[in-house]
Amino acid sequence: LLSVSSLVCCSADEDVDEPNLSRSFSLRYEPDHGGAVGSSQDTRLHVFTVDYDYVQIPYEVTLWILLASLAKIGFHLYHRLPRLMPESCILIAIGALVGAIIFASDHKSPPVMNTSIYFLYLLPPIVLEEGYFMPTRPFFENFGSILWWSVLGSLLNSFGIGLSLYGVCQIEAFGLTDLNLLQNLLFGSMISAVDPAAALVVFEEASVNEQLYMMIFGESLLNDGITVVLYNIFIAFTQMHRYEEIESIDVFAGFARFFVVGLGGVLFGIVFGFVSALMTRFTHNVSAIEPLLVFMFSYLSYLSAETLYISGILAMTACAVTMKKYVEENVSQNSYTTIKYFMKMLSSVSETLIFMFMGVSTVGKNHEWNWAFICFTLLFCLIWRTLSVFALFYISNKFRTYPFTFKDRLIISYSGLRGASSFSLAFLLPVNLFPRKKLFITATLVVIYFTVFIQGITIGPLVRYLDVKKTNKKESINEEIHMRLMDHLKAGIEDICGHWSHYQLRDKFKKFDNKYLKKILIREHQPKSSIVSLYKKMEIKLAIEMAESGMKISKSSTAASQSGRNRHVHRLSPAEVESMRDVLAHNLYQVRHR
Amino acid sequence: LLSVSSLVCCSADEDVDEPNLSRSFSLRYEPDHGGAVGSSQDTRLHVFTVDYDYVQIPYEVTLWILLASLAKIGFHLYHRLPRLMPESCILIAIGALVGAIIFASDHKSPPVMNTSIYFLYLLPPIVLEEGYFMPTRPFFENFGSILWWSVLGSLLNSFGIGLSLYGVCQIEAFGLTDLNLLQNLLFGSMISAVDPAAALVVFEEASVNEQLYMMIFGESLLNDGITVVLYNIFIAFTQMHRYEEIESIDVFAGFARFFVVGLGGVLFGIVFGFVSALMTRFTHNVSAIEPLLVFMFSYLSYLSAETLYISGILAMTACAVTMKKYVEENVSQNSYTTIKYFMKMLSSVSETLIFMFMGVSTVGKNHEWNWAFICFTLLFCLIWRTLSVFALFYISNKFRTYPFTFKDRLIISYSGLRGASSFSLAFLLPVNLFPRKKLFITATLVVIYFTVFIQGITIGPLVRYLDVKKTNKKESINEEIHMRLMDHLKAGIEDICGHWSHYQLRDKFKKFDNKYLKKILIREHQPKSSIVSLYKKMEIKLAIEMAESGMKISKSSTAASQSGRNRHVHRLSPAEVESMRDVLAHNLYQVRHR
Repeated sequence: LLSVSSLVCCSADEDVDEPNLSRSFSLRYEPDHGGAVGSSQDTRLHVFTVDYDYVQIPYEVTLWILLASLAKIGFHLYHRLPRLMPESCILIAIGALVGAIIFASDHKSPPVMNTSIYFLYLLPPIVLEEGYFMPTRPFFENFGSILWWSVLGSLLNSFGIGLSLYGVCQIEAFGLTDLNLLQNLLFGSMISAVDPAAALVVFEEASVNEQLYMMIFGESLLNDGITVVLYNIFIAFTQMHRYEEIESIDVFAGFARFFVVGLGGVLFGIVFGFVSALMTRFTHNVSAIEPLLVFMFSYLSYLSAETLYISGILAMTACAVTMKKYVEENVSQNSYTTIKYFMKMLSSVSETLIFMFMGVSTVGKNHEWNWAFICFTLLFCLIWRTLSVFALFYISNKFRTYPFTFKDRLIISYSGLRGASSFSLAFLLPVNLFPRKKLFITATLVVIYFTVFIQGITIGPLVRYLDVKKTNKKESINEEIHMRLMDHLKAGIEDICGHWSHYQLRDKFKKFDNKYLKKILIREHQPKSSIVSLYKKMEIKLAIEMAESGMKISKSSTAASQSGRNRHVHRLSPAEVESMRDVLAHNLYQVRHR
Repeated sequence: LLSVSSLVCCSADEDVDEPNLSRSFSLRYEPDHGGAVGSSQDTRLHVFTVDYDYVQIPYEVTLWILLASLAKIGFHLYHRLPRLMPESCILIAIGALVGAIIFASDHKSPPVMNTSIYFLYLLPPIVLEEGYFMPTRPFFENFGSILWWSVLGSLLNSFGIGLSLYGVCQIEAFGLTDLNLLQNLLFGSMISAVDPAAALVVFEEASVNEQLYMMIFGESLLNDGITVVLYNIFIAFTQMHRYEEIESIDVFAGFARFFVVGLGGVLFGIVFGFVSALMTRFTHNVSAIEPLLVFMFSYLSYLSAETLYISGILAMTACAVTMKKYVEENVSQNSYTTIKYFMKMLSSVSETLIFMFMGVSTVGKNHEWNWAFICFTLLFCLIWRTLSVFALFYISNKFRTYPFTFKDRLIISYSGLRGASSFSLAFLLPVNLFPRKKLFITATLVVIYFTVFIQGITIGPLVRYLDVKKTNKKESINEEIHMRLMDHLKAGIEDICGHWSHYQLRDKFKKFDNKYLKKILIREHQPKSSIVSLYKKMEIKLAIEMAESGMKISKSSTAASQSGRNRHVHRLSPAEVESMRDVLAHNLYQVRHR
């Protein structure tokens, strides 16, 4: 199925080498344009005519998305395949196949993925989904460790890999002496951007303990932003290096940049998040556009931040985290479902497209092979990842109530998969500053392929083999009430002790939230107590699940239906069912009333 | 709120005159590009930098969509406003305001709506939503009348208006003698494209009888396609007219074109619909991408048809109608909700944007005012609409069991509102063939403004005043069973009489569908009987409504809660509630089993 569909799509793609953007945006019936109007040589009216230029851009985008969807469907058709290897492997392979077909058919490099497309259109849905579905509580409970690990880890990896490679470049036998220190540092920052999406999928399946999961999750969230900033700083330094000396003030400016980019992004996101939450207060008559507000405001926060060279990733994450709580209380149940599912759909498509484009871009003439550089890059990536994990967690464990075990640290260091961000940063390099760009691209691709294929396939078995500590959490009203009691208790004890920590902080924020924010951002007549609203949310979830169960049973229990299962089924008159429904609805009402 | 928000958005938009597409697609860090990298004059590293070009396109699109959403929210904030006038009035007014601000600030015409954007991106969501939510049964029951009215009505209006205006142009005092017959006919075809979306909203609110509703619905569905074909044929003729004589073979080719475009579009759509239905059979493990398949396949059908100059509107409608039935049975409940709500959201945004762009384009120097031409256009539009309605329905009433009353016909002729399609067709005109394009644009805008503002505001009161026949239909199992019984009966009677009509046809199709199509397109283990599946669907709908009612009551009944309403509420132990839930779920299961 897959190869056939890719062939079909390719044949439609082949006659397109480089999308001629300006031309396809022109009007359809303008005089300089052929088609139905007819050129001056042939003015007869035709019954059939073809005009591909006109629809080229949306047509190709649609075809790529469909190809990606078909690849995904094909991958999941045989249920054992997803357990053997991560989806990304198959997608890259299909992409490479498509790239090879394009390359074979017109003997030139296939159109590589445009990096502005990656940063403007493909990355935001993934970031939004990650931010929106981030489990807020565990994230902020482990916030110190996450920040410590992701910021220092990225810095340590970037400088470690960069400096070690610079050392290797000094050996004349390898033919790499033209690479200077700055170029190596830049490459180090580029190659240390990890993309642990594949690892997260494995963790979720194996339901590993929450703090390990949050560590990798937090890294995936913050790491991209940090490496992009480092990369930009190094590019700027390289540019300056050609004209003048780098002074110490520049290095300080670099540091200042780091903070502006990070904190500015978060601030931006919070402001946009509050504005969008405020907007959803007034949509009770136009609930159709509620999902739109969520998507557009978070995208706007991303774009605005990017315009100011502030971290769009952090802005969008902060925006999603901020708005989520209030938006969910305001919007209708159907909008809520639409937001959730459409977000998941968009991010899954983006991910699929990125991996496929990565495969496509592998084929071509963009490569320069140098055994020494590539092997050492791979080696240093592995070494510095392991080193930084063990060093940083050794320190952070001293401050933690539940330290990370040896197994946890092993898993974290093994989950350093590289992905689309390294790849697109490599393609972004300006050739005039980096004459050996092709070598960087090749090395990056090798590292990505190695980590995705070898580590990606083996991480699942490794987690199962090491048997890391597991949790199985389930939401319930009871647990929620107890958790709140404990929170209040801990905040009170801290108050008495005079010790000031995150329990106090959370307590303060909750009071502020109840007193001011909720009043401004949430619609009137919503339930006052959050316990009641949680109960209501779970009730709705249950009702939908119950209604769906009829469908699910009918799908799965054809074998079971032969047995006498329906003996236990009571027969109910419609009146009885009606009265029950009434009672249930009123019960819900009563709880709210309390 | 509105004027403030539009001002805010405008100030961000003002510094953009014409989107420079090719530039913004360039890479961000390329050497010819300033920004963070720093140009050669200023290579110091900055803590702050701005780069707007990079994000221009998505930024402006996002801002426009947000402005449209805010306008919508503001319009519905005061609940009496939507009852006084259609939304489109306000949107056009806001658009005109924005256009005036842009025009005032830099003294040149604001960027007019690009027609390829209209046909490629704004129109498809509206068409898809109309097709997908089309009530299939009443549409096909009135199919003959709909086809008769929309095809002949469009032709009659186009030629009528065109020829009458040509007559007016012969009077030398008006200064219109340079307009030849073909140009007038083209203008006639352009101006007869009605957009009765506003009328449909009024009809839905007043719940007028089904056959009247279906007439206007069918017209809105087919009319666009017909006028676009006519328009293209006339453009081609005008082009040919410059070089050579139009021969009779060309007129025949024009007729052939008419059928190719129409039937080809429908055929295209059906094929794409079946393919996408088949695809959703295999998505049980990747339900996240189910909505995507629906959207992408229907869009692909539209684009493919447009490439071949076949009616994309008809293709997309046919695709949506074909796939709907099978897709709904295959996909999960959440995907179903997402498809439905996202479709509604997209089409509502498109509609809003179109009206706003129309307002924006009003302001500027694109106009030429000629009292005679504009007044006669308006007059002929009204006269020919009324004439064609009364003439065509007089004939079709002779073949109908339930004829259209005088009131019905009056309402149909009054609901001929012009909208975005006339407007964008006017902007599409090639200037070299139509030297007086500006006059055509002005006349079109006047007709649109007149029909939208005067007729749009008065049609609601008119429907209420005339008190047209109403229906209130409610879906129930009982009704469905009786309707099927009647269908079988009627088909049987026809069989005995030897008379062959649409009951027979439907019966044949249903048998074919059950025997072959359903087996191929719908997943295994789905319920066999469609009555059971209908029951299940309604059960799920009820469950969700019940769950939501808790939220709705809490919103509306703050006043009522003071009264002793909760006296009637039974207190239930959790165990009781649990058992009820079990009973309800099993009951559902039992019905399926039967």
